[in-house]
Amino acid sequence: MADKKKKPSRVQARVPRGFVDRDASDLRAQDAMLTKIRRVYETYGFEPVETPVFEYTDALGKFLPDADRPNAGVFSLQDDDEAWMSLRYDLTAPLARYVAENYESLPKPYRSYRAGYVFRNEKPGPGRFRQFMQFDADIVGAPNVSADAEMAMMMADTMEALGIPRGQYVIRVNNRKVLDGVLEAIGLGGEENAGRRLTVLRAIDKLDKFGPEGVKLLLGTGRWDGGQEGEGDFTPGAGLDDAQTKRLLWFVTVASRDYDDPTKSKEIDPKFDYLKEDGSGGAEKLLTTAILDSDYGTNAGVIEGITELIAIRDLAIASGYGDGRIILDPSCVRGLEYYTGPVFEAELLFDVTNEKGQKVQFGSVGGGGRYDGLVSRFMSQPVPATGFSVGVSRLMTALKNLGRLDAAERTGPVVVTVMDRGRMADYQAMATTLRAALNTDENGNPTATPVPVEVFQGNPKQFGKQLQYADRRNAPVVVIQGGDEKAAGKVQVKDLALGKELSAEITDNAEWREARAGQEMVDEADMVAAVKAILARQNGRSGGDADSGA
Amino acid sequence: MADKKKKPSRVQARVPRGFVDRDASDLRAQDAMLTKIRRVYETYGFEPVETPVFEYTDALGKFLPDADRPNAGVFSLQDDDEAWMSLRYDLTAPLARYVAENYESLPKPYRSYRAGYVFRNEKPGPGRFRQFMQFDADIVGAPNVSADAEMAMMMADTMEALGIPRGQYVIRVNNRKVLDGVLEAIGLGGEENAGRRLTVLRAIDKLDKFGPEGVKLLLGTGRWDGGQEGEGDFTPGAGLDDAQTKRLLWFVTVASRDYDDPTKSKEIDPKFDYLKEDGSGGAEKLLTTAILDSDYGTNAGVIEGITELIAIRDLAIASGYGDGRIILDPSCVRGLEYYTGPVFEAELLFDVTNEKGQKVQFGSVGGGGRYDGLVSRFMSQPVPATGFSVGVSRLMTALKNLGRLDAAERTGPVVVTVMDRGRMADYQAMATTLRAALNTDENGNPTATPVPVEVFQGNPKQFGKQLQYADRRNAPVVVIQGGDEKAAGKVQVKDLALGKELSAEITDNAEWREARAGQEMVDEADMVAAVKAILARQNGRSGGDADSGA
Repeated sequence: MADKKKKPSRVQARVPRGFVDRDASDLRAQDAMLTKIRRVYETYGFEPVETPVFEYTDALGKFLPDADRPNAGVFSLQDDDEAWMSLRYDLTAPLARYVAENYESLPKPYRSYRAGYVFRNEKPGPGRFRQFMQFDADIVGAPNVSADAEMAMMMADTMEALGIPRGQYVIRVNNRKVLDGVLEAIGLGGEENAGRRLTVLRAIDKLDKFGPEGVKLLLGTGRWDGGQEGEGDFTPGAGLDDAQTKRLLWFVTVASRDYDDPTKSKEIDPKFDYLKEDGSGGAEKLLTTAILDSDYGTNAGVIEGITELIAIRDLAIASGYGDGRIILDPSCVRGLEYYTGPVFEAELLFDVTNEKGQKVQFGSVGGGGRYDGLVSRFMSQPVPATGFSVGVSRLMTALKNLGRLDAAERTGPVVVTVMDRGRMADYQAMATTLRAALNTDENGNPTATPVPVEVFQGNPKQFGKQLQYADRRNAPVVVIQGGDEKAAGKVQVKDLALGKELSAEITDNAEWREARAGQEMVDEADMVAAVKAILARQNGRSGGDADSGA
Repeated sequence: MADKKKKPSRVQARVPRGFVDRDASDLRAQDAMLTKIRRVYETYGFEPVETPVFEYTDALGKFLPDADRPNAGVFSLQDDDEAWMSLRYDLTAPLARYVAENYESLPKPYRSYRAGYVFRNEKPGPGRFRQFMQFDADIVGAPNVSADAEMAMMMADTMEALGIPRGQYVIRVNNRKVLDGVLEAIGLGGEENAGRRLTVLRAIDKLDKFGPEGVKLLLGTGRWDGGQEGEGDFTPGAGLDDAQTKRLLWFVTVASRDYDDPTKSKEIDPKFDYLKEDGSGGAEKLLTTAILDSDYGTNAGVIEGITELIAIRDLAIASGYGDGRIILDPSCVRGLEYYTGPVFEAELLFDVTNEKGQKVQFGSVGGGGRYDGLVSRFMSQPVPATGFSVGVSRLMTALKNLGRLDAAERTGPVVVTVMDRGRMADYQAMATTLRAALNTDENGNPTATPVPVEVFQGNPKQFGKQLQYADRRNAPVVVIQGGDEKAAGKVQVKDLALGKELSAEITDNAEWREARAGQEMVDEADMVAAVKAILARQNGRSGGDADSGA
């Protein structure tokens, strides 16, 4: 097939590989979702800010997991003054640049949010796009873990505002200081091991995806995508020896162990008793017994990190989030290099079927953490910051699975049909009259929900096609005026919903003509009132939006 | 200075050349504006659609005025499979690709709108950005000029919905067929002159900017940006001889001539009597006397184009737009190459001061036209289409000038201050309680307007800095609880607006302490009620949003 295809004589219409077009219902559902998220962020005092899609490549830094791919995972190009610019790969690095550039004029702490597209120059795959939307919130100039706790709580509030039931999501919290301490303890400390630490980090971040066996390969000699040697792409490993791998995996999987005997795995999911309100939950035991009592327990970073985690736990409990919504989990690492303290991840716990037909937990829909070094890359002073990012498309998929996506079918347009193409001016005037009448209230102000009104602008030759179009657009009413009606000063208005109901009921042809399938003839002067009456009747029937056109 | 600057040791924080960051008030004003525009488009039956920022370069085509600059005016890069991709330079070319790719599944005619950033790889200048937003509406599959008339009317409605007073804007309409006929008549017909026709088009499009003398140069030998030879950049001309230039300029400036003697210029602006409702206006005379009676009048394209313009005029009059809102103007050409029929432009008529301190008409805020060839580049069948694009930033600048930009000052956050950093959990719990209480109604549903609530997350050491922060954020209330208050089960709530009023009135120090500058001590259990009371009082005083927190 491919060999035989002819060279096309025309330009081929195709969306670029890894990119997608988005239709009306998708965009409206997203809009409804973003509105809910925005509201949560605003109730916490965050304000919108927006940066351009381009940054100078040096300002963006190289913090991306796929830094070893061509172009380092980002889309870059050289400007005409030779400076390299890149499309942002997240919304955090550009925010750091923005804050540094405008530091004096911003309030401190500076709370901001932004939704925007980010770009990854990656190999596209199923559900993996090269342009996708994130919705971030950050506090810059907040040095204490209370700010991290607040971010975790706000993430939980965001999940609930979107209608994800409590128990179906969890905010996992960990601390890079603990992980860094563990890595130091197994001999991966120091500047000279920075690259290997990053490889380890990214390996652990794949635990959900590849399981402990896959992560073992990534920590050791490397992993073939296809599973067998030579199958698919090869990801080089971190080069840890067996002892190092074993000790590291012990720490990472400690969450799935029995608190009283951390060498044993637990059968049940322990997540929901980490944060018992009465303090008897697993978190303390896990952290003291399992980690502090292990040989990591002498490492200063581990102790500091765990102290911070316990503080976050206490803050969450005090504000009423200690009911399993926010949990501590040593396997939560986040894939980006720039985090320096607490990290958190919002995870959805219900099962979905993946592209291979397997049942899997839905997993992460966003996360974040503390990045105290990111702003100060540009500054002569330290600027502590913490924030998180929500993956908008992932979250939309999740809400669709839960049946929580607002994608209400909209009423289509009132369609003024064209019986006589010589009288287009009349039809357009009728549409203008209807549009004004159906979209303004008695005081001349816009009504809450717009009622679309259209003249049929296609080829009017076949009237049947106009009705098909109206049907296709989910039109509630069509308006018809042929030569006879015009001469009599009349107009036909046809209730398409009633028409459909009637034609389903009517079997007798005479009765059909009698009922005229929801169609009525009115004086031209009564056209607006007749259309309003039909819309009101339909809204009443569907129990829908009562104010449109009524 | 520049020679002496030291090499910076840090990464420099700077937004890329020609790009801008956007703050909260800018984004909120834009959001309010887009909502109004969207409503107009929706009342005409248009639905949202969105394409990615990238297109394959061949799909995008080269229709940009600056096609002769490096990179042809677009940002382009090569994908890892060698295919060239470009950032979209407008929203029309990607729509054409989208419609061609999804032709079978779309309703015909297909009405759609989209707001999005577009990118131009141009030399940045004052008010000239390399990323800016457009808000487009298009009808694909609409072959008749009635659709063009509808677009022009919708553009007028958009201007009015934004609060631009009638008489302060005008929709200018012309027809590429007329211009093409004129160019044919002066010897620029045929495929071999396509390049020169494009140069002519772009020269005429600069009439507002450079005046007739500047355009003469662009039509002839070329023009130096600085005015004198060797000053600034040189734009090559179309190479027309004096006779051709004279004939062409006669046509382009015919709008400013006396209808009864088209060889004479008129003193008054003739625009507002082109479309007299009674048909006695200038349009007919202009078009028949001035053009059809000239030696262009034998050209088939000129005749067809003018016939279409008269039809648009009649449609506009029939729908009540014949009061000067929509006018015919032979100097309106639009700079893009892909238009094939009627073109239109929304122009604002009030004066503004430009960067040189001169008073100039504000000018174009958007436009569009018929592009029957753009979709069929991809298809084996003709697909007629018409649409327009609104320049969002230009329009925002215009509305700011008119004082019509909604940029209402928002109430800042209720700030819970931190007196004792050891009790952060208490303060956070207070904020959580307040946030829930101030943002849900008695039925537990979200209130209309969010009331932000924050804990102070900066360094709490200096209490004065916390109050400065609250002031800076325009906070209505701060909540204070020190050790004494905690011990007594009390909390202080401070009305910052009242505090400011009182401190302006009070001169006596004792009286000041008495009034406590709007501060009151309440039981912990009454904190929510006390804050609500202050918010209600402030909303009452400012006549503002009555439902927030009341």
